[in-house]
Amino acid sequence: MRIPKAINNLIEGFGKLPGIGPKSAQRLTFYLLHVPDGELEKLANSIQNLKKGTKICSICLMIDETDPCSICQDSKRDNSTICVVEEPLDVLALEKSGKYNGIYHVLHGRIDPLNNIGPDEIYMSQLFSRLSNGHSSEIKEIILATNPTMEGEATAMYIVKNIKYQMSNFKSPIRITRIGRGLPIGSDLEYADEITLQRAMEGRQNYE
Amino acid sequence: MRIPKAINNLIEGFGKLPGIGPKSAQRLTFYLLHVPDGELEKLANSIQNLKKGTKICSICLMIDETDPCSICQDSKRDNSTICVVEEPLDVLALEKSGKYNGIYHVLHGRIDPLNNIGPDEIYMSQLFSRLSNGHSSEIKEIILATNPTMEGEATAMYIVKNIKYQMSNFKSPIRITRIGRGLPIGSDLEYADEITLQRAMEGRQNYE
Repeated sequence: MRIPKAINNLIEGFGKLPGIGPKSAQRLTFYLLHVPDGELEKLANSIQNLKKGTKICSICLMIDETDPCSICQDSKRDNSTICVVEEPLDVLALEKSGKYNGIYHVLHGRIDPLNNIGPDEIYMSQLFSRLSNGHSSEIKEIILATNPTMEGEATAMYIVKNIKYQMSNFKSPIRITRIGRGLPIGSDLEYADEITLQRAMEGRQNYE
Repeated sequence: MRIPKAINNLIEGFGKLPGIGPKSAQRLTFYLLHVPDGELEKLANSIQNLKKGTKICSICLMIDETDPCSICQDSKRDNSTICVVEEPLDVLALEKSGKYNGIYHVLHGRIDPLNNIGPDEIYMSQLFSRLSNGHSSEIKEIILATNPTMEGEATAMYIVKNIKYQMSNFKSPIRITRIGRGLPIGSDLEYADEITLQRAMEGRQNYE
């Protein structure tokens, strides 16, 4: 019994997506065989229109319907603070928290030498040109909010080094901060790993 | 910050698929934003062509490129044994094992009263008409290979009851068997659940 080509094509297509193994790809494909034609067409159209309906912001590289994106266009946002994140989803997560009123820079990745991803493979140079162009005097703080993983920390370190190296070119010094690391809310100290506890101790704060 | 509509549509679309929660749907969608246009188009086309490139076999209800399917067309297969399974994927799994040379019947589901799925919602009547039509004299054995879950067992029980009730209509008696249940290969007796052990004891076999 050979699997029909139409089925195999979709299994292969799904299998290329992150977090979907060959078994899940099979299950999704056979599930779609039972779905009404209209629903199937809708899903296919959503995929086809994904990029057509979105733009990449020429300032912060966030994905949105407009360029510049709604955050960069918003005059109420604080243009003097840039929060650097790895992915567009990170912007959405931070926006949901409602704690941040600055603007962003989306790297679309992280420095990851094991996977051959260097600073040139992500939107890194765009960050430095934002800092060193005419408007750089406005920027007072860079918050490095890359993930607290090996790659995220390396990416943050790379940015810190480069900004310090170029600091003399800027009109006013820029404050560089790293997003706080420590115990997540609702977690249990007993089960926290050592590095999280180290960071939590380093990141301890005074009662006000 | 509102999520662009094109992105939201696809997140919703992925979110409807089984085993994909809202977070995974978001991750898949943002992943696809980085994929080359050709790949995206290919995935969309695979979804659109999924049903166009496949047929449902009018005999065993398996999904294939031809009707009847390649198994039902194969003269080398033993037409006197029908293996009843829940889903097309089960056929592929059994074919891979290479142990079975009979034909199949795909129910496309299972009796599941909690989800309002009765025998009429799956291809159950087609099974009984296969047994009671002119060719029924050829069929000597029915192997019930529905899953060893509550619903799968209920479906198997329903089939057994109905075949026994109709047995007088058949020219020759049909042997009804249930696929063997017990410890899976490579598992550990210590960690097996009680019901699996019960079934394993019931299904013990003589050394030959």
